[in-house]
Amino acid sequence: MTILGVIGGGQLGRMLALAAAPLGVRCRVLEPGANPPAAPVAEVIGADYDDPDGLARLAHGAAAVTFEFENVPAAAVDGLARLTPVFPGALALATAQDRVMEKALFRQLGIAIPPMRAVEDQGELTSALEAIGLPAVLKTRRLGYDGKGQAVLRSLEDVEPAWRAIGAAPAISEAFVEFQRELSILSVRGRDGATVFYPLVENHHHDGILRHSIAPAPNLTIALQQQAEAIAQRVLDALDYVGVLAIELFQVGDTLLANEMAPRVHNSGHWTIEGATTSQFENHVRAVLGLPLGATDCQRPTAMINLIGALPSIDRLLAIPGAHVHVYGKAPRLGRKLGHVTLCGDSYGDLQTKCARVQTVIADQVELNAGAHQGA
Amino acid sequence: MTILGVIGGGQLGRMLALAAAPLGVRCRVLEPGANPPAAPVAEVIGADYDDPDGLARLAHGAAAVTFEFENVPAAAVDGLARLTPVFPGALALATAQDRVMEKALFRQLGIAIPPMRAVEDQGELTSALEAIGLPAVLKTRRLGYDGKGQAVLRSLEDVEPAWRAIGAAPAISEAFVEFQRELSILSVRGRDGATVFYPLVENHHHDGILRHSIAPAPNLTIALQQQAEAIAQRVLDALDYVGVLAIELFQVGDTLLANEMAPRVHNSGHWTIEGATTSQFENHVRAVLGLPLGATDCQRPTAMINLIGALPSIDRLLAIPGAHVHVYGKAPRLGRKLGHVTLCGDSYGDLQTKCARVQTVIADQVELNAGAHQGA
Repeated sequence: MTILGVIGGGQLGRMLALAAAPLGVRCRVLEPGANPPAAPVAEVIGADYDDPDGLARLAHGAAAVTFEFENVPAAAVDGLARLTPVFPGALALATAQDRVMEKALFRQLGIAIPPMRAVEDQGELTSALEAIGLPAVLKTRRLGYDGKGQAVLRSLEDVEPAWRAIGAAPAISEAFVEFQRELSILSVRGRDGATVFYPLVENHHHDGILRHSIAPAPNLTIALQQQAEAIAQRVLDALDYVGVLAIELFQVGDTLLANEMAPRVHNSGHWTIEGATTSQFENHVRAVLGLPLGATDCQRPTAMINLIGALPSIDRLLAIPGAHVHVYGKAPRLGRKLGHVTLCGDSYGDLQTKCARVQTVIADQVELNAGAHQGA
Repeated sequence: MTILGVIGGGQLGRMLALAAAPLGVRCRVLEPGANPPAAPVAEVIGADYDDPDGLARLAHGAAAVTFEFENVPAAAVDGLARLTPVFPGALALATAQDRVMEKALFRQLGIAIPPMRAVEDQGELTSALEAIGLPAVLKTRRLGYDGKGQAVLRSLEDVEPAWRAIGAAPAISEAFVEFQRELSILSVRGRDGATVFYPLVENHHHDGILRHSIAPAPNLTIALQQQAEAIAQRVLDALDYVGVLAIELFQVGDTLLANEMAPRVHNSGHWTIEGATTSQFENHVRAVLGLPLGATDCQRPTAMINLIGALPSIDRLLAIPGAHVHVYGKAPRLGRKLGHVTLCGDSYGDLQTKCARVQTVIADQVELNAGAHQGA
C-alpha cells in the first residue's frame, strides 16, 4: 500500500486521508495533539512537527510527504526533503509563510495587489499609512490565520495600539480595498507540470473566519475565470509548485487583486467533495504522488457552510434534502471550525433556499447556547 | 464519537467506514482475516464472526451493529441483539440466508418469481425439473454467492452430477427465465419506517459475478420503477427492515420477477458514491443509527465497472477524465473483486464512450497477464 505522509492531523489531514483511501493510499499524519481529527482514518505519529524522530518515522517508506498547514517549520521540511519528496516544495512554503515575500512574488509576476508596505517598527508603520492611506490593516508577516495576528487602523492614533496588538513583530500594512466581493481560485499542479483549475469560489468571511462559500461564484464570467487562472498559473509555475494551491482574491470592478495564498487544500475548496468531479483532496493526493490530475468540472451550483464554535443538531441537518454533513470530531470552542455542510442546487435560487434551511438550524443552535449561558 | 459495529471487514465494511466518518461515526469491524480492507479506516476486532468475546467487544459502547454479508451465524446475531440494536434484524437475515424462505416470502407477498421448487434429494430434483422444465439451475439453499454453490441442468442426465456438484445439500431448483435484462432495486428503510429508493440499476454478470452496472437503467420507465419500488416496499415492511436492501430482478417484457435479495449494501449500489446525492453506504449508516435518510436522486447516467482478479494500471484509469477509482487493498486472485471504477456521463452515449476507455485499460491488463503466463 502506498503511504502518504501528512504534517498535521486536523480536519484537512482527515479529509485528505478519506480521499486517499479509495486510491489505495494510506495517509500517515504527524500530529502532537491528542485524538486529532485524522486519527480514525489515518496512521498517527504523535510527535511535534519539528521532532526529528517523528519526522523520520513520517518519511519512512512514504511515497511523498505533504502538509495541511503552511506554518510548518522550514527546518523540518529541509530535513524531510533529504528522506523523501516533499510537496509543495520549500520555496512555496517559505513564500506562503511570509506575507511580504508572498506579496513581492505577486508583484514580481505582474499580479495586481492592494497597496501595501512592509513595516519593521512603529515609525515605518506611520510612514506606510501616509503612503497607502487609511483605513488599513496591519498583519504580522508570519504565523497569521483566521484573522489572528491582525489589527485594523482607522486613524494615526491607532498606530501604537495596533503595533502592540500584533506583538510588535515584523509586519505588513495593507490598504483597505473597496472590493465587490472576495473570491478564491483553487488550482492544482502535478509533478509533470500539468495544471487544472476549479471554477472561482465566492467567499463570505465574518470576524476573519470563512463562513460560507458558493461555487461557481455567482455571475462568473469567462473573462474573470481566465483572469484568475492566469494569476494562479503564473504563481504555480514560478514556484514549480506541486499540489493544490489556493489564492484568495478581491474583485474590484472587473479586476482581481491577489490577497494571499495557501499552499495546501483550503476551506474554500471543501465544496469540491460533492460539487466537483474530483475533490481538492483527491487532486492534492494525485498531484503529490505523481498521478494524473482529475477533472475539476462542477455540474451544479454548490455551497459550503462552515459549522463554527458549536455543532448544531446533526439530525436536523441530515433531514434537509441533499445536505452533506461533515463533522471533524473536534471539541467545541469559540471560533473553531468543527465541521461543514455542503449543498448542491438546481439553480442559485434553489441553492439559496437550501442554504437558508441550514442557516436556520445553525441559528437555533446559537440561540440555544445563548439561552444556556443566560440560564447558567 | 458514535461507534457503529460491523460484522465483516471487507470492501463493504471499508466503504461503510468511509461514508460514516464525515457523520462523526467510527466503524468498528469484526473480522478474523489479516489486514482486512476496512483496517486502514476502521477499528478492527480480530476474531471469528461467532466468537463470543469478539462479538461482545464489537457491541461494547456501539450505538448499533450491522453486517456486510448475509451469512452471519444466526446465533451470533441473537447474542448480539441482547447487547445492542442489530440492523437489519434477525428475520431479514434468516430469510436472506435461505433461498427457499426468501422465495416463499416473495410469493407470500404477491411478488412474481421464476418457477422454482425446493429439493431435498435427487428424486425431488427430478420431479422438480419435470414440473418447472429445462434448462434449470440448482442452487444450495444456504451460503451461496458470486455463482458458487450453483449448477446448471440442461437435461435429466445432469441431475446426478449437479446434485453432487452442489454438495448434495438442501437446495432450490429454478427454471431458466428468458429475461430481457437483470436489474436491481436498492431501497433503504429507516428505524422510523421511512423508505427511500434509488433508481433501478441494470446489471451485467459473467460467470456469476457482477461485471458492470448502469444507473438509472437505460430506458427506465416510471411504470417499471414504480413496480420495483412496490416490490421492495412490501419486502421492507414485511421484514420490519432497517438499512439498505438490494433486490435482484429479472425483467421479462414489462414485468419484474424477483430473483434474490441481499440484506446489506450491495455491489450494484456502488455507483451511488458518485452517482447519487447520498450513497448507499451513507444511507445504510443513517438508517441503522436512526438518522434521517438522505436523498437518492441521481443527476447523470452513471456506470460502475468491477475490477476483478487483477488490478489494471491505476495511472491509466486515473487519466480517464471523470473516472473514479476505488481499490480495496486486497491481494489479486482469480474472480476476486479488487476494486471498481465509477463514471458519470452527460448522456448514455457519453457514458458508453467513457466505459469503453476503462474496458480498454482492463483488457490490456488481462492481455498482460496472459502474456506473463505464456512466458512462465
